[in-house]
Amino acid sequence: MKRFILALVVLSLGFGGPASSAAADPLPSWSDGTAKQSILAFVEKVTTTGSPDFVPPAERIATFDNDGALWAEQPMYFQLAFALDRVKALAPKHPEWKGKEPFASLLKGDVKAALAGGDKAILEIVMATHAGMTTEEFEQTVKDWLGSAKHPKTGRLYTEMVYQPMLELLSYLRSNEFKTFIVSGGGVEFMRPFTEKVYGIPPEQVVGSSIKTKYELRNGKPAIVRLSEINFIDDKAGKPVGINQYIGRRPIAAFGNSDGDLQMLQWTTAGKGARLALIVHHTDADREWAYDRQSTVGRLDKALDEAKAKGWTVIDMKNDWKTIFPFEKR
Amino acid sequence: MKRFILALVVLSLGFGGPASSAAADPLPSWSDGTAKQSILAFVEKVTTTGSPDFVPPAERIATFDNDGALWAEQPMYFQLAFALDRVKALAPKHPEWKGKEPFASLLKGDVKAALAGGDKAILEIVMATHAGMTTEEFEQTVKDWLGSAKHPKTGRLYTEMVYQPMLELLSYLRSNEFKTFIVSGGGVEFMRPFTEKVYGIPPEQVVGSSIKTKYELRNGKPAIVRLSEINFIDDKAGKPVGINQYIGRRPIAAFGNSDGDLQMLQWTTAGKGARLALIVHHTDADREWAYDRQSTVGRLDKALDEAKAKGWTVIDMKNDWKTIFPFEKR
Repeated sequence: MKRFILALVVLSLGFGGPASSAAADPLPSWSDGTAKQSILAFVEKVTTTGSPDFVPPAERIATFDNDGALWAEQPMYFQLAFALDRVKALAPKHPEWKGKEPFASLLKGDVKAALAGGDKAILEIVMATHAGMTTEEFEQTVKDWLGSAKHPKTGRLYTEMVYQPMLELLSYLRSNEFKTFIVSGGGVEFMRPFTEKVYGIPPEQVVGSSIKTKYELRNGKPAIVRLSEINFIDDKAGKPVGINQYIGRRPIAAFGNSDGDLQMLQWTTAGKGARLALIVHHTDADREWAYDRQSTVGRLDKALDEAKAKGWTVIDMKNDWKTIFPFEKR
Repeated sequence: MKRFILALVVLSLGFGGPASSAAADPLPSWSDGTAKQSILAFVEKVTTTGSPDFVPPAERIATFDNDGALWAEQPMYFQLAFALDRVKALAPKHPEWKGKEPFASLLKGDVKAALAGGDKAILEIVMATHAGMTTEEFEQTVKDWLGSAKHPKTGRLYTEMVYQPMLELLSYLRSNEFKTFIVSGGGVEFMRPFTEKVYGIPPEQVVGSSIKTKYELRNGKPAIVRLSEINFIDDKAGKPVGINQYIGRRPIAAFGNSDGDLQMLQWTTAGKGARLALIVHHTDADREWAYDRQSTVGRLDKALDEAKAKGWTVIDMKNDWKTIFPFEKR
């Protein structure tokens, strides 16, 4: 029998004016300043019933880049570190790699020489490590790696190298009935095994790059097998395409850190009504890394110029963030 | 200032035993019988805390085919009716169509001759009517058509020809914290303009077939343009692939009506724990249509055999549904 329960519920409704100092600060790791204020003011505007900028909850879509925006990306994209580790793990089964680039250099420990082959070399490494298995096997491999591999600089698990201020921002938006999505150049099946636990973002709200897959019956048992062919690159002009294809609704807020996010920010801000575009600028060489226009990883050049020209919010990591990684808070 | 409001809320919690006759029937348009019971028993099992079959809300993914499962599909797929109407509307701009098949036959009113060209003819019609415009222009065209075009048999808007029992099922599952998705062979951008209003399914929970798109700046304004190239066919073996790619989680319940849904049902039921696979069998020639193994639209042949062999739930529309369309209820 269905039970009817009379519940006394205290609802904290997100309208009725800006959070007063009496209320708990939803973004405690953010320094007071224009960046933080621009976020609070935007959320206030779009959630205030009767405001000309009010947006119904169903349309409160916020999209986040991952590498360099939600977790770190130095000294190399974490997924590339995964791929390199996988090459080493798989090497015993591939004796031919000893005489074949980029694998030969990699196995000798010379990452720079291995990656000198550019996109072609990276593609070969990706396909050798990301294709040929079922989706369930790949998911387990990713989980095992994330649970054990350590970052070369901090000695921390990669999933610990997420940005505390961004975790607060994700929670703050969700508490204001935003639906938070990842829209990243990273592999969608590399991210999904950890995004729910680490960011509170479920698999169905993760958009990313992908290789083609194929459904088949293996000994009568259904399986989805990962193929050595690119399906979709969710980067640069691919980001608005991915947003349209997977989400089907234009975001009202978007968060990135590099030129790979420029088109997503353009697409988001070109919509009608209030919009928030935010760029994380990596300016803290002591607590994290400092890089922008000249970096091969997470280059921020054109998007930085456009942010200034269009008045987008640019986070100065060094000054705007009191804490960067959760493990700093002891 | 945030306002705190003390609210007295009566929560109807979905656990604690099967719905008694005293509680409101969540599926009033369903006749009492094994089909209805299999749905109620499944939901009961996976939502009962402590049950060995309990599934956490985040994993309660249910996927629904659209054509023939949520709305009708006779005498032709509704999206094809849209395409044919668009050919007529666009004909003045295409004088060359008068001498070119399949358009020439179509414009003479001979649909059968036009479609005699098979998949190639259909592809030409689709590309001529679905590509070349921005996504926003296409969305508006779809909305205009859905708001005015009438079904040839019932004279109703196409969006009125949805199945009342399935609307109840969608609501029932959502009230039990299921997340409901569409996984259809239909075009994703054809469905998204109406799924939220008609089914309560938001755009980001619609998986479908798609053509490629391209992001570009048109006079400095961002646009996504629809291209004359197939991106993804979300049918048959494409359905588990689409589920994996867009949702990233295996459904625990899936609902279809044709051989195009067979692999989705296989993939769903091959997961561990309690699963529900349901096929709508069109058996009511009076109130709807009766068709299965020999039909060119929505053929149900192999999936019907497999349903019987594996004990999936098969809905006998004539006997299991008291009401078919909402407009019957007066």
